[in-house]
This record gives sequence, C-alpha cells and structure tokens, in this order.
Amino acid sequence: MSTGFFGDIGKIKYEGPESTNPLAYRFYNPDEIVLGKRLEDHLRFAVAYWHSFVWPGGDPFGGQTFERPWFADTMEAAKLKADVAFEMFSLLGSPYFCFHDADVRPEGATFAESAKRLHEIADYFAGKMEKTGTKLLWGTANLFSNRRYMAGAATNPDPDVFAYAAATVKTCIDVTQRLGGENYVLWGGREGYETLLNTDMKRELDQMGRFLSLVVDYKHKIGFKGTILIEPKPQEPTKHQYDYDAATVYGFLKRFGLEKEVKLNLEQGHAILAGHSFEHELATAAALGIFGSIDMNRNDYQSGWDTDQFPNNAAEVALAYYEILKAGGFTTGGTNFDAKLRRQSIDPEDLIVAHIGGMDTCARGLKAAAKMLEEKALTDFVAERYAGWNSAEAKAMLAGERSLDQIAARVEAEAIEPKPRSGRQEYLENIANRYV
Amino acid sequence: MSTGFFGDIGKIKYEGPESTNPLAYRFYNPDEIVLGKRLEDHLRFAVAYWHSFVWPGGDPFGGQTFERPWFADTMEAAKLKADVAFEMFSLLGSPYFCFHDADVRPEGATFAESAKRLHEIADYFAGKMEKTGTKLLWGTANLFSNRRYMAGAATNPDPDVFAYAAATVKTCIDVTQRLGGENYVLWGGREGYETLLNTDMKRELDQMGRFLSLVVDYKHKIGFKGTILIEPKPQEPTKHQYDYDAATVYGFLKRFGLEKEVKLNLEQGHAILAGHSFEHELATAAALGIFGSIDMNRNDYQSGWDTDQFPNNAAEVALAYYEILKAGGFTTGGTNFDAKLRRQSIDPEDLIVAHIGGMDTCARGLKAAAKMLEEKALTDFVAERYAGWNSAEAKAMLAGERSLDQIAARVEAEAIEPKPRSGRQEYLENIANRYV
Amino acid sequence: MSTGFFGDIGKIKYEGPESTNPLAYRFYNPDEIVLGKRLEDHLRFAVAYWHSFVWPGGDPFGGQTFERPWFADTMEAAKLKADVAFEMFSLLGSPYFCFHDADVRPEGATFAESAKRLHEIADYFAGKMEKTGTKLLWGTANLFSNRRYMAGAATNPDPDVFAYAAATVKTCIDVTQRLGGENYVLWGGREGYETLLNTDMKRELDQMGRFLSLVVDYKHKIGFKGTILIEPKPQEPTKHQYDYDAATVYGFLKRFGLEKEVKLNLEQGHAILAGHSFEHELATAAALGIFGSIDMNRNDYQSGWDTDQFPNNAAEVALAYYEILKAGGFTTGGTNFDAKLRRQSIDPEDLIVAHIGGMDTCARGLKAAAKMLEEKALTDFVAERYAGWNSAEAKAMLAGERSLDQIAARVEAEAIEPKPRSGRQEYLENIANRYV
Amino acid sequence: MSTGFFGDIGKIKYEGPESTNPLAYRFYNPDEIVLGKRLEDHLRFAVAYWHSFVWPGGDPFGGQTFERPWFADTMEAAKLKADVAFEMFSLLGSPYFCFHDADVRPEGATFAESAKRLHEIADYFAGKMEKTGTKLLWGTANLFSNRRYMAGAATNPDPDVFAYAAATVKTCIDVTQRLGGENYVLWGGREGYETLLNTDMKRELDQMGRFLSLVVDYKHKIGFKGTILIEPKPQEPTKHQYDYDAATVYGFLKRFGLEKEVKLNLEQGHAILAGHSFEHELATAAALGIFGSIDMNRNDYQSGWDTDQFPNNAAEVALAYYEILKAGGFTTGGTNFDAKLRRQSIDPEDLIVAHIGGMDTCARGLKAAAKMLEEKALTDFVAERYAGWNSAEAKAMLAGERSLDQIAARVEAEAIEPKPRSGRQEYLENIANRYV
Ligand SMILES: [Co+2]
Ligand SMILES: [Co+2]
Ligand SMILES: [Co+2]
Ligand SMILES: [Co+2]
Ligand SMILES: [Co+2]
Ligand SMILES: [Co+2]
Ligand SMILES: [Co+2]
Ligand SMILES: [Co+2]
Repeated sequence: MSTGFFGDIGKIKYEGPESTNPLAYRFYNPDEIVLGKRLEDHLRFAVAYWHSFVWPGGDPFGGQTFERPWFADTMEAAKLKADVAFEMFSLLGSPYFCFHDADVRPEGATFAESAKRLHEIADYFAGKMEKTGTKLLWGTANLFSNRRYMAGAATNPDPDVFAYAAATVKTCIDVTQRLGGENYVLWGGREGYETLLNTDMKRELDQMGRFLSLVVDYKHKIGFKGTILIEPKPQEPTKHQYDYDAATVYGFLKRFGLEKEVKLNLEQGHAILAGHSFEHELATAAALGIFGSIDMNRNDYQSGWDTDQFPNNAAEVALAYYEILKAGGFTTGGTNFDAKLRRQSIDPEDLIVAHIGGMDTCARGLKAAAKMLEEKALTDFVAERYAGWNSAEAKAMLAGERSLDQIAARVEAEAIEPKPRSGRQEYLENIANRYV
Repeated sequence: MSTGFFGDIGKIKYEGPESTNPLAYRFYNPDEIVLGKRLEDHLRFAVAYWHSFVWPGGDPFGGQTFERPWFADTMEAAKLKADVAFEMFSLLGSPYFCFHDADVRPEGATFAESAKRLHEIADYFAGKMEKTGTKLLWGTANLFSNRRYMAGAATNPDPDVFAYAAATVKTCIDVTQRLGGENYVLWGGREGYETLLNTDMKRELDQMGRFLSLVVDYKHKIGFKGTILIEPKPQEPTKHQYDYDAATVYGFLKRFGLEKEVKLNLEQGHAILAGHSFEHELATAAALGIFGSIDMNRNDYQSGWDTDQFPNNAAEVALAYYEILKAGGFTTGGTNFDAKLRRQSIDPEDLIVAHIGGMDTCARGLKAAAKMLEEKALTDFVAERYAGWNSAEAKAMLAGERSLDQIAARVEAEAIEPKPRSGRQEYLENIANRYV
Repeated sequence: MSTGFFGDIGKIKYEGPESTNPLAYRFYNPDEIVLGKRLEDHLRFAVAYWHSFVWPGGDPFGGQTFERPWFADTMEAAKLKADVAFEMFSLLGSPYFCFHDADVRPEGATFAESAKRLHEIADYFAGKMEKTGTKLLWGTANLFSNRRYMAGAATNPDPDVFAYAAATVKTCIDVTQRLGGENYVLWGGREGYETLLNTDMKRELDQMGRFLSLVVDYKHKIGFKGTILIEPKPQEPTKHQYDYDAATVYGFLKRFGLEKEVKLNLEQGHAILAGHSFEHELATAAALGIFGSIDMNRNDYQSGWDTDQFPNNAAEVALAYYEILKAGGFTTGGTNFDAKLRRQSIDPEDLIVAHIGGMDTCARGLKAAAKMLEEKALTDFVAERYAGWNSAEAKAMLAGERSLDQIAARVEAEAIEPKPRSGRQEYLENIANRYV
Repeated sequence: MSTGFFGDIGKIKYEGPESTNPLAYRFYNPDEIVLGKRLEDHLRFAVAYWHSFVWPGGDPFGGQTFERPWFADTMEAAKLKADVAFEMFSLLGSPYFCFHDADVRPEGATFAESAKRLHEIADYFAGKMEKTGTKLLWGTANLFSNRRYMAGAATNPDPDVFAYAAATVKTCIDVTQRLGGENYVLWGGREGYETLLNTDMKRELDQMGRFLSLVVDYKHKIGFKGTILIEPKPQEPTKHQYDYDAATVYGFLKRFGLEKEVKLNLEQGHAILAGHSFEHELATAAALGIFGSIDMNRNDYQSGWDTDQFPNNAAEVALAYYEILKAGGFTTGGTNFDAKLRRQSIDPEDLIVAHIGGMDTCARGLKAAAKMLEEKALTDFVAERYAGWNSAEAKAMLAGERSLDQIAARVEAEAIEPKPRSGRQEYLENIANRYV
C-alpha cells in the first residue's frame, strides 16, 4: 500500500564506511553504542515536514521546480502528503519528525475551520505514528507566511494579530501534546522590524514577552511535558529579528523571568547569519543553561541568506556535537534537519539521498566528538590551562571575597607580572583532526 | 607658549552653512538653542586621546606613517603630547576628552611605577584642564595591548592577569574620579576567545561577571559619581568578544544583577561589525534601559574590520541622534570620536579638519533629529500605528489578564481575521529626508 | 478613462525643497538646467515594470501581500496592468520604462504562443507610448523564473535550453526595437552555478560567450540602434553568477572580443552584494570604457541579499552621479529603478510615494554632483596630486620608454627617496559634504 | 651546530594515520606515489619566511607577543634568523621556501645599501640552500610596509615611488633568479585606493599595467625561467585593491596583453575575503588559463579580515586540490603557507606543530582529490550532464554556425520545450564525502 512515490527504494540500511551504495548509511548505525547509549538515542534525528514535503522549489527569482502529486490545497492532498512523508520516515528509519500547522493542512476560510482541519490531520498522523513508530520531536505554528503576519505576529501593531497568533499557538500546542510531541518550538520569523521609522521597539518587546509568558502558562495549565523552545535567527525575512542569537534570547528570557522555562533550538545556518560559528551558539547556550535542541542544516559561507542545506562537513559537525555532548547531550531535544534540497534536485530519490548524507555526516561527527571526549583529548588541556584558578587566593577573588583595592594592593605588594603561556591553538586543532 | 604643532591655525569658529572655509564649522554652533538646550550641551563632544595622539598610522601591513615630535617613551614626550592635545581641544572648542592610561604615560618597569607615572600625568592634566576648561568625559584602562593580556584580562586563564587587570582598573578609576570624569568605560577587547578548543566559556563569563562587580563595588566605595559603561564589540582583535552587542551585554548584566549599575557606550563601527545599524543598537539600549554614551565613528560598509572613521553622512547620523533624543538625550554620556585619521592623512592640519568634519556632521544630524522630533514628523504616525493596543481588551491581553485559551476562544467566537495595513516605509523615509 | 487604481492622485509636480506635500517633488524639476542640460535629460528616469506591477509582495517566508486587480494569467489582466502602469508613468512624469517579456504577458502553452502574446501586448504598449509620450529605456528577457531555466539559460547543460533562451531573446530584441527601446539588457540570473561538483565552468563560459556573440550579431543584422547591456550581479539566485561585477564582465568581454559592443547596466544593490561601493563599480566601468546605464536601487547594508530598495541617501547617490558625470553622463543609458516596495507597503499610494522619494533623492544627488564638478571642488586637487607624472622622465617611464633596469639605475644614481604626501581624505570628504 | 631554538625536536617523520605523536606526519608521506608522482612533487610545500620568522605577533590592538632572539635590525640578527629558518625547513622536510626582501635583511639608509644587504643575505641563503637542499619557490618584494608606499607602489601619485618600487623589484628578481627561484610573485597590497575622492583610477590602472609590463620585459631580458605570478586580494590593507580576484586580474592581463605571460598565486583567505570559495578561484583561473600557484592558508569564516591561518579542514582542502589536479597540477607553482601562528602560540614548538598540521591537512586533501579523480567519481557524472552538447546541432550552435534567428526558427518549428533534469548536488556531495 505504498504510494509508489519513492519507486523501488527500500529501507536504508547501515553498511559501514566502505560501502559505495548511495542508498546506504556509512556511519549511521542506530544501534551502535557510543558513550554507553545507542547512536539513535544520541542523535534523535527528525525530518522537517515543510522543506521536504511543502516547499515547491521556489526562490526569489523563480517559481516551483518540484512536481509533487500532493501539491494542492485539499484535505485529500494533505493526506497523500502524509502518506508519502511517513513512508520516507520509515525508509530512512528517522525516529522523529517536526511540523508547522500550515505544512499539514490547507488553511480554512476561518480560524475555526483551520483548527478543525488541523485536528483532522492530527488524527490521521496519530494512526500513522502508531503504525510506523515515528515520534514527534516538535510541533510549531507558522506565524509568518500568511499576509496577516506581514508586520509580525506577537509583535504586530494590531492586537488582533497578536490574538490570532495566540489562538493559533494554542491549537498547535494542543495538537503537539496530543501527538506526544517532546518539545514545542517558536520561531519568530516576523518578530522584528523592517525599519525603525515605523517601529516602537520597546512596546514590541513587551508584546513578545507577554506572548511567551502566555505560552508558558498554557503549557503548565494543560500539563504539556515537553520543552518550550525558541529558535533564534538574526534576520530574514525581516531586516532584524528580535531573537537574534543565543545571547540575545537569554537576555530576553531573563528580562521576563522565563530563563528556567524556555530553552533554545539552535540552527547552524542561523548561527552563521548572526556572525557566529555553530559551536559558538551551542557553547553559549550551554554556558547560560538554555541549550535545548538543534536544526542541523548549514548555510553556504558565501551566501548572505539562509540556504538551509544538509550538513556535509563532518569536521565542523563534530565540533557542534562536541559542545552538545559536553553539555550532557540532548534530553527532550534532537537533531532536526531544517534543510531543503537544492531546487535543482527534483527527483524523489534526491530527498532520500540528501537525508542519508545529512544523517551520515552527523553520525560521523558525533562519533568523533564522543571519542574526543572519552579520551579527554582536549578537556585535560583546558583544565590545566585554567588550573591557576584552583589556588585559594584565586578562588577567593572569584568568589567575591576580595575587593578591587585589596587586589590592587596585592599586585603592587607582590610586584605581580604575569607570564604569558602559549594558547596552543594549532596543536589543539591537530588533535581534533585526529578524530574525523 | 603654543607648541607650534598646528602652525598658524587659530580657534575654529562657526561660520554657517554657506562657509567654504575648511577651518570653520558650518553646523556646529555651540550656543545655538535646540529643544531648549545649547547644542554643545546636547552633543557633549569628546576627542579621543589614543587615535589622535598615540596611533602611529600602522596597519597590519605597514608601520608608522605619522611623524609626531612626542613619539618617544619618556615622561617628557608624554607631557609634550599633552601640550599638543590640550591645544587641539582648545582650537576645536571640544568640551571633553577621553583617555586610556596607556595613552598618556609610558609603561613602567613595574605595576607600581606605571601607576606612579599615571598619577604624575594626571597632575599635569589637572592643570591643563583648569586652564583650558576642557573636561574629562571618561577614562579607561588599556587591558589589551600589552602581551600579558594576549589571552584576556578579566577572562584570562591565569588569575594573576585578572588581578593585574583589576589593579590597573582601580588606578584608572582613581584618576578618572580625581579629574572629574563623568563616566568610566570598560571595553573588553581581549575578553573573548580565539578558539573554543582551549576555552572554558562558562568559567570566563563568571570571571567577567566578577570583575565587573568588583568595579561597581569600588565605584560606590570611593563615591565615584560617574557612570560605569561597557563598550560592546563583536570581534577584533579576538575572533569573538563576549560583549558582542547591546542585547548580549544586557543579558550579561541581568545575569549578574548589574543592569541598574552599568550602561553602554555604543560605537557605530562596532554596531556594523555586529551586523546592526547604529540606530538599532541605540534603540535596543534605550528599550532595555541601558543607554549611556556613544563613540561616533563609522565603519566602512565594505570593510570587515573596525575602520574607525570620522562620521560624514549626516542622514545616517540624524537617525542615530533621533534615537538618542527620543531616549531623553545624554545625561553623563556624550559624543566621543573614537576615530582615527586615515594613515595617509599625515599633516597636523588633517587632525583638525577631520574633527571639524565629524563635529559638523553630528551637529547637522542632531539638529535634523531634533526638528523631526519637535514636529512629531514620525512619532504621530507610530502612535497611530499601535493605537489598537489602547482598547481595553488589548490592554488586558498585554497586562496578562487573559490566558492563551481565553484569547483563542475569543478569536474563534468573534471570527477575528485581521486586516493588514500598509507599513508606509517609503513614505516615512521621504519624511525623514526632509530634515537633512 | 482612468483605471481609478490611484484614486484621486493627480500629476506629481515640482514644488521645491520647502514643500511638505508628500505627493510633490522637492528636487526633481525636469526642466531645470544643470551643466547646460535639462535635468530630465540628465537623469533619464525609468520605472521597472516587474517590481512595480508584477511582484506580489512575496519573500522566502511568505506569500503575496499586494492585492492588485490585474493579478491573473490572462491577456485582459495584462492589459489592465498596462493601463495602470502607463497611468503611473504619466502621474510621475517618468520619461521611460523597462520590462521583461514575462512581466507583460502570460506565458503561453508553447514558445510560439508566448511570442504571439508578447507581440500583441507590444501593440498595446505602442499605442500607449504614443499617447503618453513614455519611452522604452530597455527591454529584456526573463530567462530565470521558469523551471526550464533552473540550471541556467545560456550556460545550461542542455543545449535545448540554450536554444530556447536564444529564441526568447530574439523575440525580445525584436519587440524592443519595434518599441524604440534605447538599450537591450541581459541579466544572467541563472548563469552561474550552485555547486562546482556538477559544473564544467570552462564549457559554461564558452556557452555564455557564444550566446552574447549571437545577440550582438543579431543586433547588427536587424539594425537595432540601442546598446547591448550586461547587468552584473555576484550571486542570488545562484551561489555564484558569472557576471560577478564590472571588472569580471570586462574580462569576459575582452575574452570574446566584445568589449566594444557591450556595455554595463550597473545596480547599486549588486555592487554592495559584490563587496563594492556603487561608485566603485561606476568608476571601474568608466575606466574600462564600458559604462552604460544604471539600476538605482540600494541594498540594505545589513542584509545579505538583494533588497532592491528605493534610494534614500542623497549623499551616497551624489557620489554615484559624480562618477557618471565625470564619465560624460548617460548616452543611451538612464536611471532605472529596479526597486520594489517593502512588502508591507500595500497601498497604491505607496507606489507613487516610493518613486517620488527615489526620483527626488537622485535629483538632489545629481545636482550636488554637477555643482561639485562645475566648481572643480575635487578635480583640481586630484590633478595636483598626480602632477608629478607630467615631468618628462615620468611620462617616458609610463610610456614604456624606460626599462626596469634603467629605472633601477636612476633610482640608485639619484638616491631617490620619495617623500609621502597627505592623501587628505577627511578634507575631501568635508568638501563633498558641502554639496549635499 | 644547531641554534637550539627548537630544543630537542628532531626531523619530523611520517608515522601514518594512527599515530598520536604530535611531532609526526599522519598523512604527508613525501615518497608515496599518487597518480604516478611522489606526493612531495605534487604538493611542493613552501614555508613563508615573513609569517614564520618576521611577524612579531602584533595585531591592530596589541603589540609583539613572540620573543625571538633574532628580532633586531642588524645583519647578524638576519643571519641568525636564516639559521633558524633553514633549520626549520630541514626539520619539516619542506622542499621550498618563499621570502620578501624586507623579511631577510634590515632596510638600509639608501636604496643602494638595502640592495647590497639583500645580495649579502642572498649569498648566505645560497650556501644554506646548497647544504640543506631547500629550494626557492618564489621571491617577492615588499612594496607595502614602508611609509613611502602608503599611497601605493606602481599606482602611487608620485612617479618617484613608481621608480623606487620598480628598482626594488628589479633587485628582487635578480636575487630570485640567482637563487634558482621557480616563480616571482607580485602582491599589490597597496595597489588600490582608500577613497575615490582623491583617486584617478584610470591613470592608476595604466601605471599598474606599465609596471607589470616592465617586469615581464625584464624577466625575458635576463632570461629568468620562472613564472611571474600575481596574487589577488580584494582589500586589506587598502579599502579596495585592483587585483581583486582571479576574474578581475584576468581582465587586467587581457587589457595589457599579458595573459600569456603572467599567472596567478591564489590564496584561500583572499578568495573568502572576495566572497568566493577557494575552489571557485582555482576553477576560474584554470578555466581562464592563468592558474599558477597557491597560498594554502585559510580565513576564519566569521572574521572580516585576513586571518592567515593554517588549513585544518581536509574536506575543504580536498575540493581545492581537486580543481588543481583537474587543471593538471602544479608546474612551477606549489603550496605555500602564507600562514601565521595565532599570536598566543608563542612557543617555538607551535611553529613546527602548525606546519605539521597544515601539511598533513593538505596531504590528506590531495590524496582524497586524486582518488576521486582516479575513480572518476564526479567527472563521469559531469560529462553525462553536458552530453547533449555532443549532438551535431548543439555543436554547430556553440561553434557559431547558427544565428539567433535560425535558432529561434528551429525552436518554434520543433516546438522545443526543455525538460529539467536533477542537478543531484546532495548525491555528489555524498560521493565527495566518501573520499575524506
Ligand atoms: Co534556517
Ligand atoms: Co530552523
Ligand atoms: Co572601534
Ligand atoms: Co570605541
Ligand atoms: Co537587484
Ligand atoms: Co537590476
Ligand atoms: Co593573506
Ligand atoms: Co598570500
């Protein structure tokens, strides 16, 4: 009862590093034990519904390139799309998926109709999830595509839009909870501005704070066990988005007292757009205690927009998982591919092959990171580098038991003149290279 | 008893927009009343000691181009430098200046000797300040040039460097207080990392938080009345600096409970390096309640490093002062030129002409901004745009008196479908253009 | 017999700098004489059909925001669109317009049908042009939106696409000639690559050279008097476009012996995407003898994609026209606005207001540039700066009458040690600021 | 008779991929046969004298961090520096080195004295080269550090600077020839502008063309057998450099008829600064017939200046060597490391370790590229993709045997409607990943 969309492609299997089969995993062996845990349970892969099944291949200078039998605004088409999607999850052995409301059901004439359709599709999903064993990593609401959101959702100058967006999120959390979703994500694609000339930033930030508080309160009210995640992005579509990067969102959460309630879904492409490496964003979130989940799709370093490409550089990916493993690994989070095919990759097989490549790159990277951690390849060096802070006087200074003038007096009395020590960056880079 | 360095250039006077005298102000008329205040008291210009009198004209590919009679590591040279500097402050009629310890005295063989020299020069400055009426906008410590700081000051893996830096700041605050400085600035040029491979970011952030707390405590202890300011910059010299931008520093301050104690010194060039417009950084700081002062030097939009050029685009500058005036204008802050001559501008006259251009551009921009504000050219539009939030139901929603499900119920019951309204960006841009 | 689309907006008139009428020109006085020529004849403004009448307001994260009565794929809708377009040209007093084939007619089921429709619309245009006096600055073919072009037009791996594109250009040049177009533009939006892994760059460059030669030959064959223009852009939609910037296209033209046949249509936004200032691209094209025409729409300096905004900074625009006037001004070229409204600017009036702002900014900039040139504000300085090259020995050296060893012998014999002279950048920037 | 600088570090040996010895090669086995040639003869590694032995560790915000016994402006120090340098070449087994005049001798009081010193050091080098077997990959002149060059060398407004630069290059080519150098490089670090306001670009380009012609003529006159190479860089130190990138230099060479005389030395860091991938620059140079040599040092993707880091990502490096091997590999060119240590890497061992890491990364990359080529992993796909161009009609079209209207007639007659084919980017990326 297959849809036939993927032709005769069968379940993708692990064949090991030497395999040249384009339809096999070379590194992703779900049952392999790494740091005492199955690889599948480390990586917690999810397929993104939108890019894989909804995006038509358009870009700012051209329209649809993909021809999918489910491209139509009907519930029948929505179900065919679901059939193909769950087929792909099974072929890949992807344990999770993620979706927006707008991905899975055609918009209705009214809010009520849209909500009704969402619930109908959720029923359909529930059956498929049970049959295939695929789980929901996270749900989310699309608060950016419809023209009603052109000036923002929570941050819109019109309170009716705020209300509409709030109602939409309510519906989406309901559905996420019902499908056993392990997280709920908010990406504020239009929460920002095009020009300060027409913007009251202070008011908009207050609106956004209120919106998030409403969501958190509702989560507790209904007993949703998942994590609320914010996905930072610096810009695009808006000139500036308020959830610029990890550090910015941290300040926002602190301001509204939500830093214990909300965590981050970090995306490599967004890190790069914000002028950061992905590992920087991960390390920042970990240091600030708000790391949650990842979108493991890269940007092209030479393009100034979000290219959402599948990861393909294992050495880079290893550095990302290294930060994640150091921070304890995923709890409710996972590795989502918010990645789209290149618009010239129009064959069904491209969808499969792209995910295989992405999953293999991640598996290879995570295994390298795990080994690096296991062998303390870098951590011992780092501990030694800061070892001076273990002295009693240094500890007292850091603990606030010394005042500025006391420290100054000591520096002068002891004629302290620090001796620089090599940071050994190249040496450490060479070590990291041993693992990939 | 002039040093003769500036030849026969006399005091720079205001001659009005039609003047073609390169040694006159066309817009900066210090006594002109704008929004009920003298222009000088709005702008609060300061000359930066380092770029104007210390920088030799080097860049990563070439050495000294400037030939200044005071380029030598002696106290005599330091005093000649001060003579010329205060001559220039007087010629320009700049009410303020700013300096680092390293700008004004040669480094000593020990910490104690360096401190002693700093105090000796401070005496010398005090006399000149009294004679010329020039005031100190802010003092700061150079915690980045000496090789002892190559791996950071507060965030150094070596607690001795932390201590040395703390002692240095203590000395610099002392001197700043003594000279009546109205602010004290911390720019963490090396507070960041070159590679995460050798870095414990969490620990370093804790060190930095402690350092700032020490400074704030000391300020109160000695009764320093000025404002403590942090100057954000995303990178350069380090790959990543912890004080990345306004929003990042806000989160940092919140984390350490210092958001009421510390404000920001924002620089246009650093805003651009962080991927922001200058007005964005100003609006953000104002919205978060941490706006303090500015470094009004621009970056070249096509260069990826901090070019520290004098401002020359009045329309851009107007948008910056517009945000400042909306936020109430400067209190202890002011307009510092952290700007350097191009390294080919080797004549003494270039120093004067560059400051005239910068001051005139700022004066022109501020006057445009003031008029725009006075005439409510934009503010009325903005108020109207958000007017929907004045309804009782909207206010209740924003105040947290409605829950997510209540809002959702209302949306469904009232079949709310918001109607988009034009954001009118081009119209507003045209209006702003009327003022410059 | 107006369409009523623009309501009661009447013809836009010049009211002078003091006007606060948002529907009047403050600087664009078409009959004003500047450097001995009418302002209209200097600027040669053109409205771009595509952004103003075809673009629905979509971006990569959201769909249509504009609601235009002509948004339909019928010839009737195409004619209504033309009615409104020519109404706007008349309201604005824009002497020119520009279009792609795809902007003006719905695509047919076959190439033949598409061509037939294009000719039908051309008839319709011809009538309107005669009635309104609006002229065609340039025509062009859309060789990028249809999925057949997803892998390039001239540079496609499939020769059928090359042929289809060639046939399309043939049709478009025919129509351009018939409508008296003064130029024909080629923008190679898909002439580039997404990945080198599947690309034979050498072959593709050869294909592109052949394509351009075919166009040039055909121009001569039919006696088209206009100029063939290439519009460079570095990337977007493709990762890399072969017509990267002015210098790159020059090399390409030289390689195929076309540097006397083809000139450039330069766009500010594309200059910025390529890492250049607009004036750089203009100066480069002028120095290389291939300057033709401009698309005067800016990019946002903080966005990494082509934002195609109306110009609004007169000081920047002045530097652009300064290079153009120095190069002799436009001949067949002009000032096209390849600019789109912000997608939130959904009112018909926004279209008018945006063009007024753009035209006024250009008029202000050009007048400043003309005055700067007239008064030799910069040119005398520049001439003096290079005056040393007027000596006989310097001329001989530049003319190739001295060999490297002869020059070396002279340097050693005369113990030449050059003395640096100030480049006076800040002084010159201040002078330029007198004019805007 | 070792200088003792490197302590007890012995000759670096190849130990294979499993080695964990930080002082051994894991991939660089010079005698390994790859595509029928020794690996050493493929890679042709060179150490850069300037970064390794001259750079003091300074950056725009801090001074010297390295303490080297040879840091002094005497001929004795210069010889000690040479002793250490050739020791390092031997320890590493680097077959080549590269240098500027300014790296190897202190500047004299006059041109004549500088030249004399250069020749004296050249004698010293000659002896060491004979003893150690190290060869000279290329020599070059430093025409950017001294203040006399602040406004350019060949492009200086002062013809005396042009002459001085010409004389300097003459001396450096003489020495390069004498030492058997296989190439001579020109990097125009100051050949560009800071502001167009004081620049006559056309004149400067003519000066630069003449300068290069003088060099080429002199090469032939003295019978220098090496290749003249230009190293493109888009900016830094100047705002804009004329040798922006490969395509720009190609146009420049064509303009002056030098495209058969001069080739390119391409640097990864410069490619990235110009908005390109390194493989793009290599593919471009190859397609245009001007590929020569490489500087294999990377930029940090998040930094906007030239970070000159040792390569450490083998997958990236593989793509670069893939283009080089496809183009036939190096002839006179080679792999130079224009790479500097991080300024915190102050230990002598860091110099060795950094080179090991760079050389190993390159060896690993080249071997992957060679295998990919050998197995036609990508080339078969690419050939097939363009196979349509092998038809007689397509060939005729490309050969110029069809006119635009003939092609149009055929498209219409045959009702051609091309069918898009998948570009298979993800599939090809997965294949490439098999090799690293
Ligand atoms: Co993304
Ligand atoms: Co994402
Ligand atoms: Co700065
Ligand atoms: Co600053
Ligand atoms: Co554009
Ligand atoms: Co354009
Ligand atoms: Co470099
Ligand atoms: Co280089």
